[in-house]
Amino acid sequence: MTRSNIKINENYLNLKESYLFSDIKKRVAAFGAKYPDAELIRMGVGDVTLPIAGPVARAMQRACAELGGKETFRGYPPEFGYDFVREAIAAYYAGFGVNVAADEVFVSDGAKCDVGNLTEIFGDNPVLIPDPVYPAYLDSNIMAGRRVGFLKGSDENGFLPMPDGLDEDAYIVYLCSPNNPTGAVYTAAQLKVWVDFANRTGSVIIYDNAYEAFIRGDFPHSIFEIEGARVCAIEVSSLSKTAGFTGVRCGWTVVPSQLRAGDVTLKSLWERRQSTKFNGVSYPVQRAAEAALSPEGVAASREQVSYYLENAGYIRALLDGKGMRYTGGDSSPYIWMKCPAGMGSWDFFDFLLERAQVVGTPGSGFGACGEGWFRLTSFAERESVTEGVRRLQEVL
Amino acid sequence: MTRSNIKINENYLNLKESYLFSDIKKRVAAFGAKYPDAELIRMGVGDVTLPIAGPVARAMQRACAELGGKETFRGYPPEFGYDFVREAIAAYYAGFGVNVAADEVFVSDGAKCDVGNLTEIFGDNPVLIPDPVYPAYLDSNIMAGRRVGFLKGSDENGFLPMPDGLDEDAYIVYLCSPNNPTGAVYTAAQLKVWVDFANRTGSVIIYDNAYEAFIRGDFPHSIFEIEGARVCAIEVSSLSKTAGFTGVRCGWTVVPSQLRAGDVTLKSLWERRQSTKFNGVSYPVQRAAEAALSPEGVAASREQVSYYLENAGYIRALLDGKGMRYTGGDSSPYIWMKCPAGMGSWDFFDFLLERAQVVGTPGSGFGACGEGWFRLTSFAERESVTEGVRRLQEVL
Repeated sequence: MTRSNIKINENYLNLKESYLFSDIKKRVAAFGAKYPDAELIRMGVGDVTLPIAGPVARAMQRACAELGGKETFRGYPPEFGYDFVREAIAAYYAGFGVNVAADEVFVSDGAKCDVGNLTEIFGDNPVLIPDPVYPAYLDSNIMAGRRVGFLKGSDENGFLPMPDGLDEDAYIVYLCSPNNPTGAVYTAAQLKVWVDFANRTGSVIIYDNAYEAFIRGDFPHSIFEIEGARVCAIEVSSLSKTAGFTGVRCGWTVVPSQLRAGDVTLKSLWERRQSTKFNGVSYPVQRAAEAALSPEGVAASREQVSYYLENAGYIRALLDGKGMRYTGGDSSPYIWMKCPAGMGSWDFFDFLLERAQVVGTPGSGFGACGEGWFRLTSFAERESVTEGVRRLQEVL
Repeated sequence: MTRSNIKINENYLNLKESYLFSDIKKRVAAFGAKYPDAELIRMGVGDVTLPIAGPVARAMQRACAELGGKETFRGYPPEFGYDFVREAIAAYYAGFGVNVAADEVFVSDGAKCDVGNLTEIFGDNPVLIPDPVYPAYLDSNIMAGRRVGFLKGSDENGFLPMPDGLDEDAYIVYLCSPNNPTGAVYTAAQLKVWVDFANRTGSVIIYDNAYEAFIRGDFPHSIFEIEGARVCAIEVSSLSKTAGFTGVRCGWTVVPSQLRAGDVTLKSLWERRQSTKFNGVSYPVQRAAEAALSPEGVAASREQVSYYLENAGYIRALLDGKGMRYTGGDSSPYIWMKCPAGMGSWDFFDFLLERAQVVGTPGSGFGACGEGWFRLTSFAERESVTEGVRRLQEVL
C-alpha cells in the first residue's frame, strides 16, 4: 500500500538533526568502555538537581488532595491560568518595580512551549536569532518556514550582539538574557538600544527571561524595565531554573495590552491561540507556582539559586586564576569559556574527557559562533563541582 | 507611535468568535435578574464533577513528595512521556485487544493540545470536519489556513456521517466517536468504511477517542481495532472524562509507526514537533495517569463513568417516554435531542430556561447542522439530574 497523497509540512525537512547530546553520550560511552573504572564528573548538566522547596511540595500535595475531595474538586482550569497565579506573577514583577497587569500574564506548562507556540501568531516577517543560543528559537521558526538571520555573538561583543548594521526592517527578534549558553547579560542601556530599534522598525522582541532569578548584578530583571518595551516586546519566563520546576512544568508569557500589529493586539491573538489549542495548567502545578512565588517560596528559590551561583563561583575562580577568557557565571548558572590553545569545541571536549574525566558541552552545538567555546554548568552537586574544578586546575 | 510593520498570522482574522457560552451566561444572568429566587438546574455542563479516585490522588501526592526529596527529585521529564505511562497506556489498549507499542504513544497535557498541535505537521490537504462537533478541530485548521469541508450530521444518518459522495481526494479527516455533542458512536463496520476510504484516497484520519470509557455497547474502543487503520490513522485520547482529569491535565496521542506520507513517517514528524515545542508532562501528573490506568484505577474510573451513564439513563427514559428523537446517552455522557415542535436551538433554550429553569446547550453552537437540536449532559450531580428530569417531564 503506497500513501503519497498526504502532504506534510515541508519546512520540517529543513530542520537539521541535532546530534549534540547524543554525540556527547556516544563519546562518553566509548570512553567508559575503554576505562571502566574512570569516575566521570559531569559539568554539562542543563537540569537542576536540588529538590523543590518544602512549602512548594506541600502546597502541591494539598492541591492533589483537594482534587480527590468531593467538596474541593476542581475541573477544567482557566485557559490562561488561575487568577491566583496570574496575580502572584504580577506581584513578583512588582517586586522589581515592573508594572504588569494580571490579565497580561498567561500561565503555561513551560517556557519552551510558549517560545515554540508564539511563532504561530505571526506572519512572515524575517527572524533574528542570537548565535550561539538555545536551539528552540531556530527550530520552531524553521518549522514555520521563516527566513532566519543570526545575531552573531563573539568575544568582541561579549556575546551580547546589538542591532548595529542591521537593515531597517520589521523583524521578530529573539533575545535571551541571562543567555543560555553564554551566561552573558544585557545591561539596561543595551536593552534600550534594542527596544528603540524595535520601535523604530516595527519589530517585535521575544524576550526569554528564564534565568532572571540568577541576576545578581545591576541588570534588568525584565525587558519591561525598559521604556518603550510595552509596545514592542513579549516576555517568556519560567519557574524551571528559579524554583527547580523542570519536572513540575510551569512557565508564563507576558503580552502587554499595548502591543499591536496594525489594528490587532498581539494579546488578543495569543488569547485566541491558547484558548483554541491549550486547556490550562494542572491545578496542583498552579498551586505549586503560587507557593513558589510567595515571599517564603521566593526566599527558598533565592537560596537554591545562590547555591548554584556559589558552584559557578568556584569555576570562575579557577578560570580567573588561569587567566582564561569566559563569560557568565556571575548572574547565570552557565560559564562560557574559550577553549585554550585555539582548540575546537569538540577537541576540547575530548581533551577534558581524556585528561580530566570531566564532561562539558561543546559550544559549537549552540550555533556556528559557538565554535572554539565550551559550556560549563553549575547545576551539579557541590562535591562534584569542587572535584571537577580540582581536576581542571591540573590539566588546564 | 504606530506599529504596522509586524505581520500577523492573517488566518486568525478568519476565525469566528464563538459567543455560545458567553451568550448562555448572558441569558441566564438576565433571567436571574428578573427572577432572583429561581433555582436553576444546569444540564449543559461539559466538565466532570466527581473527584479523582483515592488511589490516583494518593499516587499524585506521593510524586509531589518525591519532587521535594533530595534522593527522589526528578528534573525534566522525557518529552514523549515516562516509559511507565507509555507502557501503561499500551497495556490499557491491550485490554481491549489493540496492539499499540509504547513508543507509538505520546503523553501530553491534554487531547485539546494534541488536536490543535497536530495540524502543524501537515501540508495543505483539504480538511473534513463533522458538523456538529467540538469546535477545536475547525478553529485550529482555520488558524492553519486550510480549506475545510463539513461532514454533515443529520437525523437521517444518526449524526454519523459517512464518506459517500465525497471527491476522491487526500483529506485530513476528523472523526470523534463517541461524538461530542451528539453522543453518536460509529460501529466497527462504519469505521471500516472510513478506513478503507482513507487508504484508497491517501487520507489521514485524526480520531478523537476522548469518550472511549463511556462505550458500553458493541462499538470499537479504538480506531486501531479496524483493519488497515495503522496505515491511515492517528488517535487522540485523554483521561479527562475517563478518570476526572479535567483539572489534572493528561492525554495522549498514538501515531502508528507504519503511518507514512511518502518517505516520511508521521511519527517522526510528531516526535520532532513535540521535542522542539514541548517539554513533557508534569511528573506528578504522569504518576496520576499511571495510577488511573492501573487495574484499581480503571475499576474506579468505570464506577465514575457508570454514575454519569446512570444520570444519562434518567434523561433517556424521559425522552423515550415522551417519544422524542435523540442520539447518545447510552455510550456517551451527552444526549442530543431534537427540539420539539420545530423550535430552533435558541428558542428551545429560552423555553427551557423560562418554563423549567433548566439550562442546556443550543445545538447550533456546534455547527450549522446542530440547528434545531439541543445538548443535555449527564455530568451534574444525581439530585440535580433527577430534579431536572422532573421539570422536563412537566414542560415537554
